[in-house]
Amino acid sequence: MAKTTKTVEEMSIWEDAHQMLRKAERDGIETAWDRLEQQTPHCKFGESGVCCRICTMGPCRISKKAPLGVCGADADVIVARNFGRFLAGGAAGHSDHGRDCIEAFHAVAHGKTKDYHIQDSKKMLRIAEELGIATENRELLDVAKDLADKFFDSFGSKHEEVCFINRVPEKQQENWKNLGIMPRGVDREITEMMHRTHMGCDNDASNTMLQAARMCLGDGWAGSMIATEVSDILFGTPSPRKAQVNLGVLKKDQVNILVHGHNPIVSEKILEAVNEQELIDLAKTKGAKGINLAGLCCTGNELMMRQGIPMAGNHLMTELAIITGAVEIIVVDYQCIMPSLVQVGNCYHTKMITTADKAKFTGAEHVKFEMHNGMEQARKVVRMAIERYGMRNQDRVEIPGEPVDIMTGFSNEALLDALGGSLTPLIDAIKAGKIRGVVGIVGCNNPKYKHDYCNVNLTRELIKKDILVIVTGCVTTAAGKAGLLVPESIEQAGPGLREICGSLGIPPVIHMGSCVDNARILQLAALLANEIGVAISDLPLAASSPEWYSEKAATIGTYAVASGIYTHLGHPPNITGSPIVTNLALSGLDDLVGACFGIEPDPFKAAELINERIKAKRKGLGLEE
Amino acid sequence: MAKTTKTVEEMSIWEDAHQMLRKAERDGIETAWDRLEQQTPHCKFGESGVCCRICTMGPCRISKKAPLGVCGADADVIVARNFGRFLAGGAAGHSDHGRDCIEAFHAVAHGKTKDYHIQDSKKMLRIAEELGIATENRELLDVAKDLADKFFDSFGSKHEEVCFINRVPEKQQENWKNLGIMPRGVDREITEMMHRTHMGCDNDASNTMLQAARMCLGDGWAGSMIATEVSDILFGTPSPRKAQVNLGVLKKDQVNILVHGHNPIVSEKILEAVNEQELIDLAKTKGAKGINLAGLCCTGNELMMRQGIPMAGNHLMTELAIITGAVEIIVVDYQCIMPSLVQVGNCYHTKMITTADKAKFTGAEHVKFEMHNGMEQARKVVRMAIERYGMRNQDRVEIPGEPVDIMTGFSNEALLDALGGSLTPLIDAIKAGKIRGVVGIVGCNNPKYKHDYCNVNLTRELIKKDILVIVTGCVTTAAGKAGLLVPESIEQAGPGLREICGSLGIPPVIHMGSCVDNARILQLAALLANEIGVAISDLPLAASSPEWYSEKAATIGTYAVASGIYTHLGHPPNITGSPIVTNLALSGLDDLVGACFGIEPDPFKAAELINERIKAKRKGLGLEE
Repeated sequence: MAKTTKTVEEMSIWEDAHQMLRKAERDGIETAWDRLEQQTPHCKFGESGVCCRICTMGPCRISKKAPLGVCGADADVIVARNFGRFLAGGAAGHSDHGRDCIEAFHAVAHGKTKDYHIQDSKKMLRIAEELGIATENRELLDVAKDLADKFFDSFGSKHEEVCFINRVPEKQQENWKNLGIMPRGVDREITEMMHRTHMGCDNDASNTMLQAARMCLGDGWAGSMIATEVSDILFGTPSPRKAQVNLGVLKKDQVNILVHGHNPIVSEKILEAVNEQELIDLAKTKGAKGINLAGLCCTGNELMMRQGIPMAGNHLMTELAIITGAVEIIVVDYQCIMPSLVQVGNCYHTKMITTADKAKFTGAEHVKFEMHNGMEQARKVVRMAIERYGMRNQDRVEIPGEPVDIMTGFSNEALLDALGGSLTPLIDAIKAGKIRGVVGIVGCNNPKYKHDYCNVNLTRELIKKDILVIVTGCVTTAAGKAGLLVPESIEQAGPGLREICGSLGIPPVIHMGSCVDNARILQLAALLANEIGVAISDLPLAASSPEWYSEKAATIGTYAVASGIYTHLGHPPNITGSPIVTNLALSGLDDLVGACFGIEPDPFKAAELINERIKAKRKGLGLEE
Repeated sequence: MAKTTKTVEEMSIWEDAHQMLRKAERDGIETAWDRLEQQTPHCKFGESGVCCRICTMGPCRISKKAPLGVCGADADVIVARNFGRFLAGGAAGHSDHGRDCIEAFHAVAHGKTKDYHIQDSKKMLRIAEELGIATENRELLDVAKDLADKFFDSFGSKHEEVCFINRVPEKQQENWKNLGIMPRGVDREITEMMHRTHMGCDNDASNTMLQAARMCLGDGWAGSMIATEVSDILFGTPSPRKAQVNLGVLKKDQVNILVHGHNPIVSEKILEAVNEQELIDLAKTKGAKGINLAGLCCTGNELMMRQGIPMAGNHLMTELAIITGAVEIIVVDYQCIMPSLVQVGNCYHTKMITTADKAKFTGAEHVKFEMHNGMEQARKVVRMAIERYGMRNQDRVEIPGEPVDIMTGFSNEALLDALGGSLTPLIDAIKAGKIRGVVGIVGCNNPKYKHDYCNVNLTRELIKKDILVIVTGCVTTAAGKAGLLVPESIEQAGPGLREICGSLGIPPVIHMGSCVDNARILQLAALLANEIGVAISDLPLAASSPEWYSEKAATIGTYAVASGIYTHLGHPPNITGSPIVTNLALSGLDDLVGACFGIEPDPFKAAELINERIKAKRKGLGLEE
């Protein structure tokens, strides 16, 4: 198969990546960059969103010669339908993950598992009270039962609003009601999106896009937010701690296990197992010095935030991590796991273990994790890894570089703690212009763009401008490797941000977790808006996903915008074939929800775009720009 | 724009269609056939299902040069993901329609509407008891409240099984449990399907297809079945009655209103309004002799089954109905409504009225129907139609042909009545070989195939072979126009079927309703299986959708197969690029669920295929072939 013609320096900004890409070449291994080249040029119909496959009168493609599909749908309708379904994929990913968390919580509440526990009962009780559940003089597990039911209700069909809408500033709530985009059941909105995009249903692009906004709000304020809150309840609310990133976190003389995916339910048990003395001893009998656990992508973020487990890499590093030759087992739950990892693993001794029935991989070994057997299965997987250590060919092992230190664990609770218990210092800093604004940089990598170039440079540019940056997802690793997730990086920040973060002892770039944890950013935005007494859309906030690739990233962007947060994307989704959808995204939404999207591949220009937005919002609040 | 090069005789088997296609040519109107020609040849990647657009590392297309997508997904994975989402669109359509029915029922139960009522309280109480709801000494509306909640629960997340699983033969239930395809919440399965098909989740084609089966079972045994049962409760359980079909049901001297879509909630109110003397009188003041209501597609089926309202046409007749120039207003709810109808209407004086927020059409007028204002809005729409009668240019009116009589209204309750209150006569007839089997022919039209040629010829061939045919959806109109939906058509049947139907006074082709009413066929199959004490897959049954086009049809086919019913399709869905998915559909499923798909475009060969299957099943039961 054709290899990419790019140099390793063109592919990634990182030395650990370069080294592994050279090894991939030597070892004859195909990576995402090679496959991208094979798939280039992409189909223009697909890229612009005007190809329709939703019925067998087609497939249809809109062109000058054929301006309508067989049913009569035009480019606007086709793009809106395709994009609506694209966003549905993202909303479904987060929200079904949230459902899995509730199921675990429900099992704990009903005594159906000994392997999972309520680790933050204080947070659980606080949320129960917030959602109107009686807590006084009640058994903890009884409250938990009610809370689990309350969460499940947000996935059902009967209620007019999902939970946590109570957190949304009133002005925003009214706006959503007026537009008819107040999210009802999480699943319901996804189903309605799929229904509307069936042939002969919604044939008005703007109307379809409003439903997309409603569905994404259901993801942000319920599906994802529930995932985050329940994960905190079950595994502990993150607090600041140290960790390390890059491929250097793998150990040549230890059994290496990678956890990959998004949901902490499996990986938390693997972590417990690798710390069991019996298993450590077993590893030693096989000649290893110990068992080393490292994360990838959002499962990595979850473990890093709560437990300080090191992160081997982000999306485009997942194949490269295996190419080190040092990985015995990669345990995956779901989402963003390249199918190619099975084959890359086969080139070494690396076995992929799947754990969720909803995410099997042909060629991987399936070890089904259930509530009642989490620890048992975790031990089984760790034993398999130990067994495979003997199969490792140390001559083919190459672990590049030295790990970089980072600081992680900034839940909103932790951030409030760092601020002394109230948002006032942050608000005062914003008012004084020392922190000019706050920007969440989130999302993925995409081999179409030099790996982490935009993620890192945009972050650097913004902190220079006294803008506090919050990172989640794959941007975490980028910022971490760039040395931006340590307090010392205030040296790279503008004077105001340097002063504030310096006095608090926190980095100017704050790690807030995984992709579902973008719900933490939503909550922070709502807290700020409520405290100041304005709408989220009035605040000097923005979001960015410079190197996104996944449906979930587009869904996150859409709920951010619908919540009133201007959102920058490095490249547009496949919507450019529709003037209506494109104009709505780039400006029309501003009139409807007070925010819109901006597209800019260059991180320096993007920083300017975002800065202009923050200036305008500061001006709107009567603050110095 | 390019017109089709086909002759009208190549396009359709019907004279009313030919006449309107000629008029379309004269009036300069583009139809689906023209647009099909513009869209031909179709994209080969799309047709075989190997084009992937679920992330922005792509779009990717599988070929020899590029056998994997950027993420590493192969043709099998890509086809499975695409087809899973295709089926999700269908399941979502039916099930969201079911949800709307529950919402209406819930509003009735809670006294929130004066426009809707429980019309079949006997059926409601029977179903309540069936689902374990207490009925004795209770107010009807209290039972209704509980039943509505029970139905809603099937859309939620907490339960392990949707309702009406109780109807499924035990052997089938065990089979589903063993395969892990017992449907839980209706929406949940749709969301999980969307989740699994996100990049990096399910990367095992067979596993993805099993989830597709589970989701479709949730549609068949809950979403669609609830839609049917609740519609019966609210609007009456159908009983045999006469009606008429074809474009001749339109009236040159009356105000003509067409209702189109799938859900009876709007059309039942329109029907009430057109019968109001005040509005009839108003129409007369405008020079019309009255107000004529006719149906299209499944909204037409719903009204025909329960009220005997005439049917103007099926899917490919919808544009042609407007080309008569005699239609004042076309009122639509949702699904299968060609967007082109707005433009075709604009060429005459025909206005499209949309009624559901989830199905707006650019260029149509939106009259939002809600539970509290159904009658008010219906009257408004009828008044608009009367107003538009004056705008009709009678010189451009051409209503072809004479209506054909049909017999409709065969709910399972009605069928049981016709059989004298028990299935025994039917089972005896099957055992004796007088009725050799039962086949449901369902679904759509597709301009790729001569309109209704397969629908009609397959029906004729099967009754010749003493196979009782049940029709729903767009096949109804086809069979009706062919004269097969009247008792006299027993003359075209084989001797056994002729004898049985003759003695019962029913046609050899039974109209059982709309597309969601395929759930009636499922229920009948279950009743037969339970009565005989076997699994559905043991029975001499089959299903067919010879001219299907929509996602819903594929979903119906999948729940039929997963329920154990062999299903013939005139053409395959876009799966042929995957050997795994194709083999699973055509044979692998047989080992798993006791049924599979068969593909055959020729209706005569298809009849043979189906007949062979029925022979085999008869043999399996120890009956004469």
